[in-house]
Amino acid sequence: MRVRVDLLPRGPYPDLALVVDVLRASTSIALLFERGASEVFVTESLRVARELPADLALAEREGLPPEGFFGGTSPAEILKGDFRGKTVAYTSENLPRALRAAEGAKTVLLGALVNARAAVSLAKSRAEEEIAVVAAGHRGNEALDDAVASGFLAKKLELTLPRATLDDGARIASALLKAFPDPQEALWRSESGQLLARLGYTEDLAHASVISRTRAVPLLVGVGGSSGKGVWKFIPLFA
Amino acid sequence: MRVRVDLLPRGPYPDLALVVDVLRASTSIALLFERGASEVFVTESLRVARELPADLALAEREGLPPEGFFGGTSPAEILKGDFRGKTVAYTSENLPRALRAAEGAKTVLLGALVNARAAVSLAKSRAEEEIAVVAAGHRGNEALDDAVASGFLAKKLELTLPRATLDDGARIASALLKAFPDPQEALWRSESGQLLARLGYTEDLAHASVISRTRAVPLLVGVGGSSGKGVWKFIPLFA
Repeated sequence: MRVRVDLLPRGPYPDLALVVDVLRASTSIALLFERGASEVFVTESLRVARELPADLALAEREGLPPEGFFGGTSPAEILKGDFRGKTVAYTSENLPRALRAAEGAKTVLLGALVNARAAVSLAKSRAEEEIAVVAAGHRGNEALDDAVASGFLAKKLELTLPRATLDDGARIASALLKAFPDPQEALWRSESGQLLARLGYTEDLAHASVISRTRAVPLLVGVGGSSGKGVWKFIPLFA
Repeated sequence: MRVRVDLLPRGPYPDLALVVDVLRASTSIALLFERGASEVFVTESLRVARELPADLALAEREGLPPEGFFGGTSPAEILKGDFRGKTVAYTSENLPRALRAAEGAKTVLLGALVNARAAVSLAKSRAEEEIAVVAAGHRGNEALDDAVASGFLAKKLELTLPRATLDDGARIASALLKAFPDPQEALWRSESGQLLARLGYTEDLAHASVISRTRAVPLLVGVGGSSGKGVWKFIPLFA
């Protein structure tokens, strides 16, 4: 098995892509499934999110849900909610870029620290030749939080796949764990983490750092949308 | 001053780009100037390299200079040569991609471990707002050797520019030094390093790892070429 890490999405990916947007989309969507959601639609557009056939829509601009939205995209808020049986529309700035690069892969999963063990286990059972860990990055640049979380997942894959061959991206990401043995520190030091802390979301950094707190792994099951506004549909797997 | 590291070239860069292809182009070109070369033309095409108005042309395919070429692109070979006053055509696979992304910057320098101190010193004196350390990467993927060398340069910039603001790319690259306190180990473990070792160029890995052995820093002074075949002209600065 090949284990590859891309510190920015570029694709195409031939087999399995494990997409990591640890602050916050891949964390929050795993936790939505943990809290009972049945389907999550991801989009970057507030307009598209409003029009989707969902029970409720989550979005944030400048730290607040815009008018017409049920709530924000914060893991801390999601953990307080009950989403049993709900279809949720979730807006994200960085995840859609990664999904656009990854959507041609045979299997696309969302990975984070909160579902690390389950995501690694499912990736290994579903991949045939290559697991590409794809860091979403922040506004088109490499993100420290995603790089370290990707390294955490790649290291778990390396340790449990005795014949894995790693690319240099995987070597770079895994090496970051020497500098950040506690991934939470990387979340705090990252640009995304600093932005969230300024907006008052310090709790999110703690919640996003809890390793393997959920067995839920979001699986991409549909791609849609029009006029360049993508929509990606996820359902949960539990491992 | 902003200090930014891109682990793959993407540009455009508004101010100063310090381009790092440690195995081997930025190392070898710095050493060509150390050994007296007056100008170096960089291109990816053997045909273009043959036709350039140069005194001699260096290239390698499968570890050997092709017919009509004076010699290979190995730092070990270059250090044995005398290039005083010569104009040299140098072919490279990975550096041209980075130069294409960087050529719009106000200043483009080549940085490596062999000219680290000089490259950092010139970058600081020539940049006005941003120093972008641009890792060339290997065949379109992040390269461990370039990432660690970029981290080495970024850390030197951070330590000597007390008001530097770093981006996450710089944080990622600098953090790699914790895992690779001796950058030579990263060169050995990288895909490029393993490829060179298989071709018998183990000496190159040692030569490319000698920190600040030369004061020569290649400066981009001209961009040319036609039909998509770029040519970039460098002269030396000494710091």
